[in-house]
Amino acid sequence: MNGADALCDVLLANDVTVCFANPGTSEMHFVAALDRKPEMRCVLGLFEGVVTGAADGYARMTDRPAATLLHTGPGLANGLANMHNARRAFSPMINIVGDHASYHLPLDAPLTSDIEGLAAPMSNWVRRIAGPADVQPATEAAFRASLTPPGVTTLILPADAAWGDAAPASPGKVVLSPPPAVDRDAVRATAEAIRAAPGRVGMIVRGRAARADALEIAGQISTACDVRLFSEVLIARMQRGRGRVAPTRIPYPIDAATALLADIDVLVLVGGKEPVAFFAYPGKPGRLVRDDCQVRTLAAHGDDLHAALEALRDELGVKPSQQVDFATAFPDEAAPSGGLTEDAIALSVARKLPDNAIVCDEAVTSARRFFALSAFAAPHDYMMGTGGSIGGGIPMATGAAIACPDRKVINLEADGSGMYTVQGLWTQARENLDLVTIVFSNRTYAILHGEMKNVGVNAIGENARRMLDLDHPALDWVSLAKGMGVEAARADTCERFDALLDSALSRRWPFLIEAVI
Amino acid sequence: MNGADALCDVLLANDVTVCFANPGTSEMHFVAALDRKPEMRCVLGLFEGVVTGAADGYARMTDRPAATLLHTGPGLANGLANMHNARRAFSPMINIVGDHASYHLPLDAPLTSDIEGLAAPMSNWVRRIAGPADVQPATEAAFRASLTPPGVTTLILPADAAWGDAAPASPGKVVLSPPPAVDRDAVRATAEAIRAAPGRVGMIVRGRAARADALEIAGQISTACDVRLFSEVLIARMQRGRGRVAPTRIPYPIDAATALLADIDVLVLVGGKEPVAFFAYPGKPGRLVRDDCQVRTLAAHGDDLHAALEALRDELGVKPSQQVDFATAFPDEAAPSGGLTEDAIALSVARKLPDNAIVCDEAVTSARRFFALSAFAAPHDYMMGTGGSIGGGIPMATGAAIACPDRKVINLEADGSGMYTVQGLWTQARENLDLVTIVFSNRTYAILHGEMKNVGVNAIGENARRMLDLDHPALDWVSLAKGMGVEAARADTCERFDALLDSALSRRWPFLIEAVI
Repeated sequence: MNGADALCDVLLANDVTVCFANPGTSEMHFVAALDRKPEMRCVLGLFEGVVTGAADGYARMTDRPAATLLHTGPGLANGLANMHNARRAFSPMINIVGDHASYHLPLDAPLTSDIEGLAAPMSNWVRRIAGPADVQPATEAAFRASLTPPGVTTLILPADAAWGDAAPASPGKVVLSPPPAVDRDAVRATAEAIRAAPGRVGMIVRGRAARADALEIAGQISTACDVRLFSEVLIARMQRGRGRVAPTRIPYPIDAATALLADIDVLVLVGGKEPVAFFAYPGKPGRLVRDDCQVRTLAAHGDDLHAALEALRDELGVKPSQQVDFATAFPDEAAPSGGLTEDAIALSVARKLPDNAIVCDEAVTSARRFFALSAFAAPHDYMMGTGGSIGGGIPMATGAAIACPDRKVINLEADGSGMYTVQGLWTQARENLDLVTIVFSNRTYAILHGEMKNVGVNAIGENARRMLDLDHPALDWVSLAKGMGVEAARADTCERFDALLDSALSRRWPFLIEAVI
Repeated sequence: MNGADALCDVLLANDVTVCFANPGTSEMHFVAALDRKPEMRCVLGLFEGVVTGAADGYARMTDRPAATLLHTGPGLANGLANMHNARRAFSPMINIVGDHASYHLPLDAPLTSDIEGLAAPMSNWVRRIAGPADVQPATEAAFRASLTPPGVTTLILPADAAWGDAAPASPGKVVLSPPPAVDRDAVRATAEAIRAAPGRVGMIVRGRAARADALEIAGQISTACDVRLFSEVLIARMQRGRGRVAPTRIPYPIDAATALLADIDVLVLVGGKEPVAFFAYPGKPGRLVRDDCQVRTLAAHGDDLHAALEALRDELGVKPSQQVDFATAFPDEAAPSGGLTEDAIALSVARKLPDNAIVCDEAVTSARRFFALSAFAAPHDYMMGTGGSIGGGIPMATGAAIACPDRKVINLEADGSGMYTVQGLWTQARENLDLVTIVFSNRTYAILHGEMKNVGVNAIGENARRMLDLDHPALDWVSLAKGMGVEAARADTCERFDALLDSALSRRWPFLIEAVI
């Protein structure tokens, strides 16, 4: 067997059974090896941003890594932006980047580049396979690194390591280290701090602390001890909907965020870092809490967040039977009619959301109301891009749909962001995924118009307008989707949108609604 | 004035008057400054690969840098693959990458990343602006570095350097160092080597040595001294067509390349490096010349290649009036009819090529015949992606059309490559460019099917087929183009293709032909 076969065997032995791929010449032996492994599902993306973004979505829904297959430095470069988003979401991922045969590198052939240098900024772990004999240990190390704690790993596979003879082996399952034991001192200190400042304690949940079962524990603590629950502005994954505890999301606008946290004396972090301003603005703070706010970590990324919340509940003397205050019911609003608006879309999607759906929200400014309403919608998983790099939505939805074929995926997508990785629609058609994309077609980078105001520019001129608006020509998303084999239709009234959404939700294959607002 | 204004002023003072842009929040002050400079042409790309690829095409046609505007690390990352191509073409380029305010970086906000680390592998020069007072010297240094010798520069603009007060100044033109004087020793030694091995000397021309006037000198030397002229497999820019000297392109397949160079005892390099195999294959050589071939550099990138060729001609005693042997005439073939083929497209485009057209060839396997035929076509400029990273074609054609509004641009584009930066079609529509895109729609990564055979796989299975073919669903390029505002039509016969090409060549705005082969 050759090194490429050995690599596939290690992946399959560890239940890494999906490979999102865009191969090139230097990976042909790896492609040939994958071809000999029908149990590996190979999913082609027509651009590498689709490949890494799909692996991110897959990981968020399965808590397991997919493999990606990327072609040398430029192929990796095209995947970096969504690796950045994945890294910020703590998504496990194993990127396999093909490179020239090691002896070919000194010749500096056209595709030669510094792959380690490119990978490092967006990876938690990077290793170049030293030769065929190193394939098994390196791949096992990459798998382990992708999960303990979860993160983005990059494994560089030189062509001669792929085609060279590797000793036949029967790789077993990699034994993963369990998460560290709950830090009892942190639990006790956090409980004391909560008792000392009733009504003035906030708790931010992230990662697995944002799953329904952990949220319920956090909700019990919140109800019993008057702790305010928050989530970060960008949410990697949260289980939401009726009967689930809904933390308050910290707003993106910095003044609103600091106002929300103004009377917080103690901020407890569960699985994340202290929240900070997304961007700096002249004369505005970077931290969102007061400088005298006590910030303490109950448990960090890689810890058992559920167990830490249970331990805190016990330490605080809250019973497992503690009832939780849930939010109030869905607003009693008449269905909107006439010209379509962002808020009408939000209301319609929240009302019609199927049970157990997965919502990927990259609508940026356009779906703000959806998040609020979704607390009262059917139970669902909610995900956003987490690194601030746009172009994650279509790929992430694609990967989530591959991870969860029995669940409906709904992608709320901004037109500006959607264009970054529009090629992902083709993969949705190729894989016949149960997925509806709703494009908020406002034909502008709306967030940037807001940011121009934030820097004091109220009347913009021709040069700025041409950099911030997507009109002239308007994008025609129905044609774009059709071009990639995805059925699509356009709505500019509430009635038409509702009818299209009903139709899209009733089928099990991809559909795109261009919502003109 | 603020730092962003100072940056614009330095660019404009040095005739950098085009900015390809995809801005984000951290660049809002720079956008506002550009908005105050109507003499700067700001061109929006809906993805950063379009932005950097267009700057590459612009630079190749003008020998001058355009600026690009990229949003923090992920925005830069999206532009890296075409920076790689540009770097391999020695294209001057000034990438301006916005970053957080410097004091915001320690907070590790979501968009924070190691921008220097990302930029370095694909840049010849990187500098972070230290503050508002550093804007002018840093931008002047970036301009100088982009041209002496030509290359890709990256300037990181922290938000607080953009918004901070910069002393008002009237920046002048940067004084550029002239290229080094011609190396007389190299000229004499090259002449001796040419005299010593008649009929067994090859000369590879690259960069400005591939312009018509320099090619003519190389052709005079070739004719008078029995020197064989070559070009590399990937050509950054070459002036071709009737009445111009046409070097033999070194073939991509390694066996054909080594066979072509088998009897070359002396290889003279003019503006480039020794050619090497694009990829390594088990048991095949990496160098293309024999190990005992004498490889010598007449002049290197950054030297005055035209002057070096003149000096060599003089040293060899060749008269400036020396006649040149030109290639034979256009083949006397009947216009093909019936089902469309790659070769029929090549023949049609070569026959109908308008005078002084610009041809961007990213058709990979599909346009091989075009290159041969184009030696007899109307005079034109010919360009390819030079770093082996696909996705350069549509952006490069876009940038070339902006650089040369009075010339017709023809983009020969593979379907697989075209999808990488398909968003560039929108910029073509927005800027109303005189450009026709011909998509060779073979619905496969044809080159990779060939490479699978090269690694010994003749019958491929389901997994490989799904990674190498673009069918199921077939891409519909007419709809894709329509979705971005570009008129388009499909041809699957020679007659239909000819009619569409005539129509496209008769207008002055963008058109796309999906050539189904």
